[in-house]
Amino acid sequence: MSPVFDPAYVARVLDPSYRNWRRLYYRDSVRVHRAHLVMLLEKGIVGSRTAARLKAAMGTIDASSPLPESIPAGTEDLYFAYEAELERLAGPEEAAYLHTARSRNDMDTTVFRLALKRELLALIENLRACFDAILARARRGEGELTILYTHGQPANVSTTAHYLTAFLLDLLEGTEALLAAMGSTDLCSLGACAITGTGFPVDRRRTASLLGFRAPVANSYRAISTSHWLVMPAQALRLLLGDAGRFAADLLHKASCDFPDELVQASSIMPQKRNPVILEHVRIQAGMAAGACASVEELFRNVPYQDVNEVADAPVTMFIDALATASSCFDLLRATIAGMGVNEDRAREIASRFGVTTTELADRLVRECGIGFRSAHRICGVFVRSGRDKDNLRRAFRESTGTDLAWPDETIDEALGAELFVAVRRTEGGPSPEGMASVYEAIDAAMARIDAALDEVGERGRKADAALDAAWAAIR
Amino acid sequence: MSPVFDPAYVARVLDPSYRNWRRLYYRDSVRVHRAHLVMLLEKGIVGSRTAARLKAAMGTIDASSPLPESIPAGTEDLYFAYEAELERLAGPEEAAYLHTARSRNDMDTTVFRLALKRELLALIENLRACFDAILARARRGEGELTILYTHGQPANVSTTAHYLTAFLLDLLEGTEALLAAMGSTDLCSLGACAITGTGFPVDRRRTASLLGFRAPVANSYRAISTSHWLVMPAQALRLLLGDAGRFAADLLHKASCDFPDELVQASSIMPQKRNPVILEHVRIQAGMAAGACASVEELFRNVPYQDVNEVADAPVTMFIDALATASSCFDLLRATIAGMGVNEDRAREIASRFGVTTTELADRLVRECGIGFRSAHRICGVFVRSGRDKDNLRRAFRESTGTDLAWPDETIDEALGAELFVAVRRTEGGPSPEGMASVYEAIDAAMARIDAALDEVGERGRKADAALDAAWAAIR
Amino acid sequence: MSPVFDPAYVARVLDPSYRNWRRLYYRDSVRVHRAHLVMLLEKGIVGSRTAARLKAAMGTIDASSPLPESIPAGTEDLYFAYEAELERLAGPEEAAYLHTARSRNDMDTTVFRLALKRELLALIENLRACFDAILARARRGEGELTILYTHGQPANVSTTAHYLTAFLLDLLEGTEALLAAMGSTDLCSLGACAITGTGFPVDRRRTASLLGFRAPVANSYRAISTSHWLVMPAQALRLLLGDAGRFAADLLHKASCDFPDELVQASSIMPQKRNPVILEHVRIQAGMAAGACASVEELFRNVPYQDVNEVADAPVTMFIDALATASSCFDLLRATIAGMGVNEDRAREIASRFGVTTTELADRLVRECGIGFRSAHRICGVFVRSGRDKDNLRRAFRESTGTDLAWPDETIDEALGAELFVAVRRTEGGPSPEGMASVYEAIDAAMARIDAALDEVGERGRKADAALDAAWAAIR
Amino acid sequence: MSPVFDPAYVARVLDPSYRNWRRLYYRDSVRVHRAHLVMLLEKGIVGSRTAARLKAAMGTIDASSPLPESIPAGTEDLYFAYEAELERLAGPEEAAYLHTARSRNDMDTTVFRLALKRELLALIENLRACFDAILARARRGEGELTILYTHGQPANVSTTAHYLTAFLLDLLEGTEALLAAMGSTDLCSLGACAITGTGFPVDRRRTASLLGFRAPVANSYRAISTSHWLVMPAQALRLLLGDAGRFAADLLHKASCDFPDELVQASSIMPQKRNPVILEHVRIQAGMAAGACASVEELFRNVPYQDVNEVADAPVTMFIDALATASSCFDLLRATIAGMGVNEDRAREIASRFGVTTTELADRLVRECGIGFRSAHRICGVFVRSGRDKDNLRRAFRESTGTDLAWPDETIDEALGAELFVAVRRTEGGPSPEGMASVYEAIDAAMARIDAALDEVGERGRKADAALDAAWAAIR
Repeated sequence: MSPVFDPAYVARVLDPSYRNWRRLYYRDSVRVHRAHLVMLLEKGIVGSRTAARLKAAMGTIDASSPLPESIPAGTEDLYFAYEAELERLAGPEEAAYLHTARSRNDMDTTVFRLALKRELLALIENLRACFDAILARARRGEGELTILYTHGQPANVSTTAHYLTAFLLDLLEGTEALLAAMGSTDLCSLGACAITGTGFPVDRRRTASLLGFRAPVANSYRAISTSHWLVMPAQALRLLLGDAGRFAADLLHKASCDFPDELVQASSIMPQKRNPVILEHVRIQAGMAAGACASVEELFRNVPYQDVNEVADAPVTMFIDALATASSCFDLLRATIAGMGVNEDRAREIASRFGVTTTELADRLVRECGIGFRSAHRICGVFVRSGRDKDNLRRAFRESTGTDLAWPDETIDEALGAELFVAVRRTEGGPSPEGMASVYEAIDAAMARIDAALDEVGERGRKADAALDAAWAAIR
Repeated sequence: MSPVFDPAYVARVLDPSYRNWRRLYYRDSVRVHRAHLVMLLEKGIVGSRTAARLKAAMGTIDASSPLPESIPAGTEDLYFAYEAELERLAGPEEAAYLHTARSRNDMDTTVFRLALKRELLALIENLRACFDAILARARRGEGELTILYTHGQPANVSTTAHYLTAFLLDLLEGTEALLAAMGSTDLCSLGACAITGTGFPVDRRRTASLLGFRAPVANSYRAISTSHWLVMPAQALRLLLGDAGRFAADLLHKASCDFPDELVQASSIMPQKRNPVILEHVRIQAGMAAGACASVEELFRNVPYQDVNEVADAPVTMFIDALATASSCFDLLRATIAGMGVNEDRAREIASRFGVTTTELADRLVRECGIGFRSAHRICGVFVRSGRDKDNLRRAFRESTGTDLAWPDETIDEALGAELFVAVRRTEGGPSPEGMASVYEAIDAAMARIDAALDEVGERGRKADAALDAAWAAIR
Repeated sequence: MSPVFDPAYVARVLDPSYRNWRRLYYRDSVRVHRAHLVMLLEKGIVGSRTAARLKAAMGTIDASSPLPESIPAGTEDLYFAYEAELERLAGPEEAAYLHTARSRNDMDTTVFRLALKRELLALIENLRACFDAILARARRGEGELTILYTHGQPANVSTTAHYLTAFLLDLLEGTEALLAAMGSTDLCSLGACAITGTGFPVDRRRTASLLGFRAPVANSYRAISTSHWLVMPAQALRLLLGDAGRFAADLLHKASCDFPDELVQASSIMPQKRNPVILEHVRIQAGMAAGACASVEELFRNVPYQDVNEVADAPVTMFIDALATASSCFDLLRATIAGMGVNEDRAREIASRFGVTTTELADRLVRECGIGFRSAHRICGVFVRSGRDKDNLRRAFRESTGTDLAWPDETIDEALGAELFVAVRRTEGGPSPEGMASVYEAIDAAMARIDAALDEVGERGRKADAALDAAWAAIR
Repeated sequence: MSPVFDPAYVARVLDPSYRNWRRLYYRDSVRVHRAHLVMLLEKGIVGSRTAARLKAAMGTIDASSPLPESIPAGTEDLYFAYEAELERLAGPEEAAYLHTARSRNDMDTTVFRLALKRELLALIENLRACFDAILARARRGEGELTILYTHGQPANVSTTAHYLTAFLLDLLEGTEALLAAMGSTDLCSLGACAITGTGFPVDRRRTASLLGFRAPVANSYRAISTSHWLVMPAQALRLLLGDAGRFAADLLHKASCDFPDELVQASSIMPQKRNPVILEHVRIQAGMAAGACASVEELFRNVPYQDVNEVADAPVTMFIDALATASSCFDLLRATIAGMGVNEDRAREIASRFGVTTTELADRLVRECGIGFRSAHRICGVFVRSGRDKDNLRRAFRESTGTDLAWPDETIDEALGAELFVAVRRTEGGPSPEGMASVYEAIDAAMARIDAALDEVGERGRKADAALDAAWAAIR
């Protein structure tokens, strides 16, 4: 006799949960059933006739998809609905064997881990495409002069390449952190059963391997109780989203001030409207996804270190939905950066108006005229205050050093030029070609590590699928 | 002529900042000055006489500590106060050379990174001691029976070792994440100057190396603008604190229910008071430190990707103070776990009252009596509902299978015993000695990785200090 | 010629926004159009023939609902799609008049305020029903003994009524705060146009009144830029959800320890399962909705105080979805509390085991035997340590006071009784009937204030609807 | 014999707590002792001789302040240290009477509520001064033209008064919310004892009144368990801080773009430095205080609805420290706004460059030339695209209407003028003098409500102090 649930409980918990399962987790749950049955058979925990009957029944269910859209009356969850079908097709005694040496605890967590890993990989692939677009735009901007700001004020001349690669390095570091965090998701809980494992001789490494996981979770209690497989990726994603939000804020700053139509040039996107609105949506979507990540983490606050429903479908689904928002945000960011223009005349104009390059004049006086720092800055201060009158510069030089400044006017102009400002910055990590060499090296190395990690996971997944298919085919 | 600042600005920004610097960052700033001067000399950017004079003046300042407790009138920050001393001692022209090819941007960030790294290492050393205490207590509890819960209800019998190692593995994973995050702190910003580097031929690798950093930050704009060196450790610490809070909640649950005076046995700590209050303080301190970590992260929300004061002393100091709270929290946790008792009689009583071991009886009927799962569970259901009357068990067995249950009563009792429940759980990661083998392996491996990382950082730091001392001594 | 948008922008911003509008805001936008047109006509800004034509066209659109499910190509939002229909039906020149003296800024914000107010009222009605259920259960529990805890330990005997009304008072205070916060939502932005109003002689009070708002927003820039109408209700809701989470945690504590099947008696809800799982879902849903509220608030962090899309459909929709989750949470809470049982025998047993009532024995010795506090506590301490041996109590009394304790054994037992413990607590706000009188008064007063506020808003809304209908009907 | 505490517990809990008490709560605790003793005497719960002895001993302690800086060995908290002094001075038997009908639960919470209320009032007084400065600056800026932005782009011309009053109305609404939230703090827990009150005939209204509280907390369990008195003010403060952060972001936007040295003119504050840095500190301090407020709220997440240490000194102190940071932030804001300049020429230049006033030209064509909206916008579109050539405007008008535009060129220029743009905006809440009338009314009304509330609390406090002094003097 099936149980009768309170209508509020059905409407507010069971049915929403069933729908989540149907929408997001059903295919993964079937993979878990298959891997588990293969292992039970291999370890002699179920016989081959039972395995064959279960396989046949599962095949029939797959082919006929009998699971209704909302939860059937008197059913607790999607697995019970599935098991009821199994019973109808294979008989109750045989059907029960599928769940040998397993509990919904380890089964569910395994399914959620599989699903989350899949969605994380999809997001990372999307990020990967975004990085290619940023890098391509940076490469195109190697010689493009642009003004960079500190505390909201024009500070230095640099290049689009220098600016974009700084941001890209943040994103790459965040993505490496996300991949590392995914390592906590990429572990298998199967075999933990309720929390302490089982007396049946299960092989946890075999099921983990058939499902493409790195390994089983090392302690069966932890396999069920830990929050890390959810919280660690949520944190790493939050870091990336925070960077996206900061970058959008910076472009909005540039867009509203100095590069009204060019830097955030994206005319194909919003022809009749001011461009920066797309940046607001980057900020908002980053914020909403980051809020969901914080919510996932905060859900576990003061929750006993036990098996709890915080690792179940409602929070996992909230997180997976946040991954979609994050993907959307990075799509917008990619479109924005790919279409970004630059206005070098404006950059030069600002450089001149704000005296951005005077620092370089002073440095050059030190380097080339053998005077001290303090004197050089004092001389340049006079020059700036006089409205950049070269005669004043020369007079100040003479007063300070007792000698005439040997440079012709052209040398002074060159020393104040935006191009020179960039060209002399050969410091490792600076905007000149010499400085950028190590920047590109760092980017290439990070990209290579990310690709290698993605390849390893992908290759492992393909091998696991093949092994599971083969083992499944062998059941008869 | 020194500037005159608004009193509100002095009282609310400059003086608090000066005090933070004096309390936390002064020693690190002197190290940065030394490393910078050594490099300037080595690269020929300053001459040896200038270097020697600066060294002498710095030595005099060190010996006489002339910096007052609150900010001197008309001074903007501690560095200006320091430079004023230098000028007094070495003359203004020479004093100015110390700041060649440097800006307060790269200098300050480098100092903060040094200080934060130092404090993070101190916290991790403290965590390390906590882990030793947990592992020692777990080892002592290898045979200690305890009840583990799911959803707040007694679920399985296990051992203290199994339980504590699950939690320990969470902490170890969190600590590895913290070490990885510290990798972002452990990079040197020097040479980035304002944001684009400099025209002087500085050697960023040399200063990074003299200060014990892994490497320079790859892009000079990023060196000043990124938040990662603060946010990544804040996230990782938050994960650890979240785990501590969950564990405290779990012990509070156990303490209030089933192990009133034993599991959280800590009588030497609070003799006249109920024990669990210490656990509340673990929860609260974890919560307060986690709140500060979230605050650090959230500070950067929508802040332009530029040089901003969010990477300056106020937030860094808030974070460093949170590290102290976190250390306090883990001290309390260590004292609690080290003194934790266990009440095996109570565990057995609960196991019996809640029928925790009946699952095992059913599993054993399947394994040893050749009956199916569903039948075994039906038979055990009759047994439980009858108040565990063995005659009822036998009758149900006969009705279901048509044969008599061959087991004597002792076998039934044994099958229901708490010891057997644990002993048969040889699953990898389960509570039996066989199951625990891989758990200890995982712990040892993680501990070894952590120790290796700490050793590498420590060794690098010691070598850097020696190299800096030697190079400093060579200035004359 | 319609604009061509970038596919990423359409897929990631325009289409999701259009769908939000279609699902949640369309009906409200039509009300806003009507109220605006009525006012324009009344103020002579549009003529009666234009008004009549617009009314006819709007009627046709209403009747035929021509808005497709996803955004039509080349359209920016739902309003443009609507306007395109108007143009088709009334001609472009007439159609344009509907938007006279209006911008999408003030129009959109007004629509969102209307929708949010509607959803907040629905939530508060739901809360109201929950309060009735809690109060009814409390009234039934006036004489039911229960143990209340401090720091997780049994502390005092009390009654279900005393316990539940404490929580109810928290919820009522939170609901009053939510109603007050809704006051910020319940203001009309119409007439603010972009941000500074208009040169047309609009009547902002008239449109506010026709739409049932309290008043117009006082400053037109603020009408568009403030976040309060979103953030204030989000904060108040978060308070309520926090209380729900704490209460669920407390019931889980009680459920797992001392009232396993009774206090959280909810057998009709989950017959075959441990009851407290429903409480986990209260905790989780409260946590998820609270997370969304925090996310709404945090979205505005460091966002310039201007018109920004944070007050537009994506965040508003996220918040409205969180209101639905909150409603679900309170439905579960209501079902739980309505079905809550109590186990008085168990309460008495704990009271006795933990010596919960000994405090009262000491107090009574002070009050009735004329001895000091310290002596009374010392005497009772001896009694408790002796395993509550009455002879020991008498001996300690004699040693301390020099006289015999005049009470017969029955008086001692009575003084230790759970019933007496409650009965003597006549303190205002305590569990005895005398103590509870002011508690019920406070509850009744709060409920009356809430009902009066709901009535005022409801009555205002009905009058506004009638006035708008009448004014609309008068257009011809 | 005094207890021996674990050193970790002393160092990490007891001593920090003792220091918090000594620094922040000691004076309030003495007031609570006095009020309690007065009430005990009045109700005959202690005799007059006992009361007189206790008063004398308390006087001696007050005069000699014997409490050491760090916690005395073997002492649990500051109250025990105080009681030990009482015992030394009045004898143990008498000393014990002070704690009759009281527990540390209700005593501590009452002390914390007193202290928090005091600090909240100090903050609100500070806010009040900030509002006066903003209002004064707004009044000075009634005719000052300024550009206001939407989505970061120049949108409308307005006045400094219009802009600042919008922000001020947000702050006033937030402050009213803070005062309302303080109502939850301003309730007295005394008499609740542990959680259920007492058998002694205490008078809770009397102690509440002597301490200046609004009333006792209605339910004794709630008096100890609720978080509202902390969380509600934390939420309201967070709203204010969020507004401050948004305003700082807006000024930073204006400062960096269009009003480089003027709008955020504050030259007396930072003469030698770019001005906006002070705004960064507003943002940072607002962010840090807001983070602490969020932390206070989040501390209660999933904490059982019981007496817990989250309502004790560590979190309360964290919150009080955050109030100081908030005060600092509003001091900086006040200094910034008071010194704010404006550059009207620049405003005019932007108005012209961005065609900000063209909207008004179109509106005026509709109002004065009897043409439709769509036509007017089309005509103005031609005008803008032609680089504002008046001939093009006239030609487009003729083509669209078949008649000549009757306006002379001066009328066109006037219609495009920044002054006219403001002057015609007589909409309620708009920037013209007529529009601002209701804005000032709203501000005056809100200020008056705030002042009345502050007066009521202040007057109640003074009366309470006088009553307590009188009653205390009467003890002899």
